[in-house]
Amino acid sequence: MSGFRWEVRDGVGFVRLIGAERKNPLTFASYAALRDHFRALTYDDTVDAVVIAGEGGNFCSGGDVRDIIGPLTEMTMPELLRFTRMTGDLVKAIKGCGKPVIAAVDGVCVGAGAMIATASDLRLGSPRAKVAFLFTRVGLAGCDMGACAMLPRIVGQGRAAELLYTGRSMGAEEGERWGFFNSVVLDVEGEAAELAASLASGPNFAHAMTKTMLDQEWDMSLPAAIEAEAQAQAICMQTADFERAYRAFLAKERPVFEGD
Amino acid sequence: MSGFRWEVRDGVGFVRLIGAERKNPLTFASYAALRDHFRALTYDDTVDAVVIAGEGGNFCSGGDVRDIIGPLTEMTMPELLRFTRMTGDLVKAIKGCGKPVIAAVDGVCVGAGAMIATASDLRLGSPRAKVAFLFTRVGLAGCDMGACAMLPRIVGQGRAAELLYTGRSMGAEEGERWGFFNSVVLDVEGEAAELAASLASGPNFAHAMTKTMLDQEWDMSLPAAIEAEAQAQAICMQTADFERAYRAFLAKERPVFEGD
Amino acid sequence: MSGFRWEVRDGVGFVRLIGAERKNPLTFASYAALRDHFRALTYDDTVDAVVIAGEGGNFCSGGDVRDIIGPLTEMTMPELLRFTRMTGDLVKAIKGCGKPVIAAVDGVCVGAGAMIATASDLRLGSPRAKVAFLFTRVGLAGCDMGACAMLPRIVGQGRAAELLYTGRSMGAEEGERWGFFNSVVLDVEGEAAELAASLASGPNFAHAMTKTMLDQEWDMSLPAAIEAEAQAQAICMQTADFERAYRAFLAKERPVFEGD
Repeated sequence: MSGFRWEVRDGVGFVRLIGAERKNPLTFASYAALRDHFRALTYDDTVDAVVIAGEGGNFCSGGDVRDIIGPLTEMTMPELLRFTRMTGDLVKAIKGCGKPVIAAVDGVCVGAGAMIATASDLRLGSPRAKVAFLFTRVGLAGCDMGACAMLPRIVGQGRAAELLYTGRSMGAEEGERWGFFNSVVLDVEGEAAELAASLASGPNFAHAMTKTMLDQEWDMSLPAAIEAEAQAQAICMQTADFERAYRAFLAKERPVFEGD
Repeated sequence: MSGFRWEVRDGVGFVRLIGAERKNPLTFASYAALRDHFRALTYDDTVDAVVIAGEGGNFCSGGDVRDIIGPLTEMTMPELLRFTRMTGDLVKAIKGCGKPVIAAVDGVCVGAGAMIATASDLRLGSPRAKVAFLFTRVGLAGCDMGACAMLPRIVGQGRAAELLYTGRSMGAEEGERWGFFNSVVLDVEGEAAELAASLASGPNFAHAMTKTMLDQEWDMSLPAAIEAEAQAQAICMQTADFERAYRAFLAKERPVFEGD
Repeated sequence: MSGFRWEVRDGVGFVRLIGAERKNPLTFASYAALRDHFRALTYDDTVDAVVIAGEGGNFCSGGDVRDIIGPLTEMTMPELLRFTRMTGDLVKAIKGCGKPVIAAVDGVCVGAGAMIATASDLRLGSPRAKVAFLFTRVGLAGCDMGACAMLPRIVGQGRAAELLYTGRSMGAEEGERWGFFNSVVLDVEGEAAELAASLASGPNFAHAMTKTMLDQEWDMSLPAAIEAEAQAQAICMQTADFERAYRAFLAKERPVFEGD
């Protein structure tokens, strides 16, 4: 069982994490399936933006305690490292898929589920959203799937430290105030779908470059980042979409982007 | 035409972007003139702080669509790269000029104009300020002039991603709440001039060091940054201004800094 | 005189900066004593979390003007560098002590005192807290003890620049809104002690790993950070505390962590 359903509508792909009775947990199989799914998306030209959501009023309860934590307590170091690298590879795959990814977070969003939301480009929350990096509650460190690298860049170092040390829940209003949620909306899936459709209308080659550079420049010096952007943007200026936007401007029309 | 006016009053330099009928756009010539101007400022001891503002109730409409985007659609890659490097060099010149730079943002502040504000050290906004990184609207990526490096460090990664992917306007109140604007004030030029005058009163050698280190340490490890500051601050401790501050303290007077 | 008192209660160590009549200033001797104290803490298994507080309604007035700044104006460069490296070493020692450190900030928290709070993992403020990085007021740069590296990561680059250039006070409400303070509470010492006790209840090996990684990953690329966390978390998965948490879950009990 892959642990999620996949559907494409008008260029937007929807990943729906499933298993409502246990709040859509992740299993060994679903980590791997999600990783492979996002890796394959890199080469899928029919999808231009992705929404990740859960079902049954919750986003994701993270790695299942019985199915995942139990076996982990029995593993050797090579086996453990194979697991933690797999979960990290899921984050790398989301970051590397070349399409904007929007997490639509309703209800429970904890553990590895919170990391899937964190690894997304944008996050919309419902008023019921509760996000917790609760690794510490199961005896582990806050450094899971890139949390200590990504969360401080989203909400700041002090707030990230609090969330990672205590494992406490961050509510929707707080999450918006801190910049974790881009906004809090009643119809979180509807709004995420709308935002994704808007991004999927392009310019898609350029969006993929934005995604690449937003992560690529984290550990560059400022001059190196500026040179990297000079190159990246010059590449985008040779796309047909750039010329399409210019022609549309002259014609006082809305540009129709085609992704090349 | 250089596209801006320059005036110095009491050690504060004022860059005024001009062309009110088109909301003070940038042209090929004005990018280059601004770059050269900020480069020259590095060696200008008569200016100790800089304010950048627009005219006619707007800050800057960015690269002009007809004057800049039109020609870009016709260029070869070497020509394109010459352009994107020139715009990036403007950011490097603002960052490298050795004086605190304050953007006084009224009205429209978009595209390369938004990047000039982003590259400034401090930003004051009027209630009418509207900031948009609208590169995506003309078919380009959000990675322009260092945006993907600088904006996440100012407003956080999630909010920066939203602004760069969507190109939507950030209002004044939102900009203040997110840390893009240091404050929102009615008389944005008056307050920027006052803040600049206060910074220009020194200690100027030390301010220049603060500016250098704020950018220099982005991609350093924490121990390397701490060692870099130990060296930088030891240098500042050998300035006469440091001793002047101490003498003033003993005399219960306000220190008068002289910049050496 | 070391300039602070030390007390351990139930696994929580309390550093109390003293000298109420001058708002608990730092002296050459107290910098060194604090540095040595935090270095020694690294190997002290009886302490699992630390609270730093002041006395007499203030946190710390920073390096004393007469006792520290006076002598600094007379020093040679090697002597100055020995001093700035010592203050930087205090930050490194706080960062390297392996235990979560909570600053309980009441009243005045300025200069090197503000940097001790900034170097802490978490910061609670009282409504009376006033934080100022006032190096500029004594003729120095904002780059002191790692300020230009740490403060932008806590409150964002624009707000950090303002605080470091102007040396102005940041109030409690503002500090909370910007993410400097994790929260503002009336009984700041009581709440800090409670939070520290909660963290000291473990999992302590994991908390130490969280602390290490939160700083270690600042200048890593995202893929490198993800790999580093895969290794770090795999190590934590071999602790007995991880298994204790699992057993407690199965038994529907609260886990009792022992730190191994």
